Amino acid sequence: MAKNISILGSTGSIGTQTLEVVKEIGSISVKAMSTNVNIELFEKQIRQFKPELVCVMNEEKAKELENRISDMKITVLSGMEGLKAVATHEKSDTVVNSVVGNIGLEPTAEAIKNKKDIALANKETLVTSGELIMKLVRENNVNMYPVDSEHSAIFQSLQGNEENNIRQILLTASGGPFRKRDSLDDVTVEQALNHPNWSMGKKITIDSATLMNKGLEVIEAKWLFNVPLEKITVVVHPQSIIHSMVEYEDGAIIAQLGVPDMKVPIQYALTYPKRVKNSFEKLDIFSVSSLTFEKPRTDKFRCLTLAYDAIKTGGTMPAVMNAANEIAVAAFLNRRIGFTDIPKVIEKTMNKHKVIGNYTLDDVLNADKEARKYSEEVILCL
Amino acid sequence: MAKNISILGSTGSIGTQTLEVVKEIGSISVKAMSTNVNIELFEKQIRQFKPELVCVMNEEKAKELENRISDMKITVLSGMEGLKAVATHEKSDTVVNSVVGNIGLEPTAEAIKNKKDIALANKETLVTSGELIMKLVRENNVNMYPVDSEHSAIFQSLQGNEENNIRQILLTASGGPFRKRDSLDDVTVEQALNHPNWSMGKKITIDSATLMNKGLEVIEAKWLFNVPLEKITVVVHPQSIIHSMVEYEDGAIIAQLGVPDMKVPIQYALTYPKRVKNSFEKLDIFSVSSLTFEKPRTDKFRCLTLAYDAIKTGGTMPAVMNAANEIAVAAFLNRRIGFTDIPKVIEKTMNKHKVIGNYTLDDVLNADKEARKYSEEVILCL
Repeated sequence: MAKNISILGSTGSIGTQTLEVVKEIGSISVKAMSTNVNIELFEKQIRQFKPELVCVMNEEKAKELENRISDMKITVLSGMEGLKAVATHEKSDTVVNSVVGNIGLEPTAEAIKNKKDIALANKETLVTSGELIMKLVRENNVNMYPVDSEHSAIFQSLQGNEENNIRQILLTASGGPFRKRDSLDDVTVEQALNHPNWSMGKKITIDSATLMNKGLEVIEAKWLFNVPLEKITVVVHPQSIIHSMVEYEDGAIIAQLGVPDMKVPIQYALTYPKRVKNSFEKLDIFSVSSLTFEKPRTDKFRCLTLAYDAIKTGGTMPAVMNAANEIAVAAFLNRRIGFTDIPKVIEKTMNKHKVIGNYTLDDVLNADKEARKYSEEVILCL
Repeated sequence: MAKNISILGSTGSIGTQTLEVVKEIGSISVKAMSTNVNIELFEKQIRQFKPELVCVMNEEKAKELENRISDMKITVLSGMEGLKAVATHEKSDTVVNSVVGNIGLEPTAEAIKNKKDIALANKETLVTSGELIMKLVRENNVNMYPVDSEHSAIFQSLQGNEENNIRQILLTASGGPFRKRDSLDDVTVEQALNHPNWSMGKKITIDSATLMNKGLEVIEAKWLFNVPLEKITVVVHPQSIIHSMVEYEDGAIIAQLGVPDMKVPIQYALTYPKRVKNSFEKLDIFSVSSLTFEKPRTDKFRCLTLAYDAIKTGGTMPAVMNAANEIAVAAFLNRRIGFTDIPKVIEKTMNKHKVIGNYTLDDVLNADKEARKYSEEVILCL
């Protein structure tokens, strides 16, 4: 069951946990990997996992790394061409896409065309271009394995039920740190970064606080599992023990539970359909005090509604929604705008966009670019 | 997907619900069925479902029924030979064994030898003769589908994981009506029959109150899923929403949830691997207030420990434990003994028994007979 993988974004939260899984289970070899700028950690990873090809997105940092690892026979590339080279490395069977943001889109498409299976942690790939990417997946007869804990739970709950009709997908959400807070007006960056259950990157932590993360996941679920939007129900489950559920037509609900630990879904994406023994923390069901479920407060968390609006409109609109959200979250993290300004920026940017229905990858990238520009203008005028 | 079935015990709780499922999903035809004595309901069922062969265990009642349905061309048999004829009817593919007590054992063995799949609701079959019955199942290459809500949940949670190792089975228990009660000394029949979540037959309702039901299910799970006793953990889950779980070696737990409704597991046993749309009540996850989990109080509920003791000893001991329990529960229902006398009767009967390790069906039936006799003696001496 030996497997060779490429990792896009090995120094991020999912990337480092992917390497922990690789180290833990032993049967996986890393052939290529990339980072954005963090070459200190990247060098350590390279020396430990010995890939054949690496890419540092930043050109200067790439040169710096080349000098640092001149004792090793490793090709160092940079930029998008480098990232694509990592994604299409000839020895890799599977590409773990764990970069953050829209940058993961093109390399994923290239990897699929090169018959690689995808372990997908990058949300933007399916959010912005789900229809197109899933068409590529079918045409190239590759597998798309979800790495996200919710989508992995759904994927796990679908096993053995391939022939059965889904009544609804119950996509769980922690509800974020502000679930019980009445007003979101005075939310600080520090408060928003303090997620109750999951330790994640900054962008996704803010998205969890606004519930945009769940909106993005609804869109992903629609494409990954080929279900209509009406069959996806968001369930706020503050304990994050049930990672999502699938209800079938007969009324049976299948769920996946566990401690909140991304390493389990990462591992399943890499070893599927096998489950491999590991030393990761296990859930002690007797230590669970109680599991509860609530409807999401869409009146308060407007980002979730905006995500639904975007996918209902379809075409290039989800890409625009996603780009505007990235800009707005960055502006919030830089203390340029308030927490409740995030949905305002997204909504205004969406209203401005002229949707292209039957889109190409270039259409998505253009829509993304324009939306970023316009969002910045909106922020200046707030 | 048309299927022909025999039902052993069609007028009981599981039997009537099986007929509701048959009526609901339409693709199943009842070829033969049996009852103990309730010929009023049985006649209605016969007129509605038109089987070719029926059996009334009680000979007099059988004759009475024969007169009542003399307008129909239906063979009426009685006694164990009749029950076996129902179980082995040539047109049936699947036998639903929903009789209560050890009487289900022989017909199930006959059905398996006649290459019928089994939908098993009768607990005693596997409790008293699990090793032997599962050997027959393998030899005759038939399927044994669990109908019990817990075992069905485990079976459902195993789908798509046939190649994966189980870390533990988490067998849920409602905890019965006396979970929070300090002393069981003054428990009345009425209190014991008042189960918080499930509407079931009297015998099984008392078994739920003593937790013996869970002990029997542990033994069944051991045989059905071929797992060692150490890998079966009883989890008290008072809400009966999670119907059981399977934890795999990677730490992922798969669970099945739903409203407490036996019709869903009955249907799955009859339509497996397909799930069929139905009009049964569906779980509204938002109406679930909270799901909790506790360790079973084995100090208070001694029947659970006795069941573990019996299966650890093995051989004919589980049959003896089961027979003693049947007698003790009947005596409790007839107000001859108190609630806390039930484990006393079982324990004394088990202590008296000389175990036969490598047993035959006859050994089981003899052990059962002797245990019943001895239990009655114990009751007289209490």
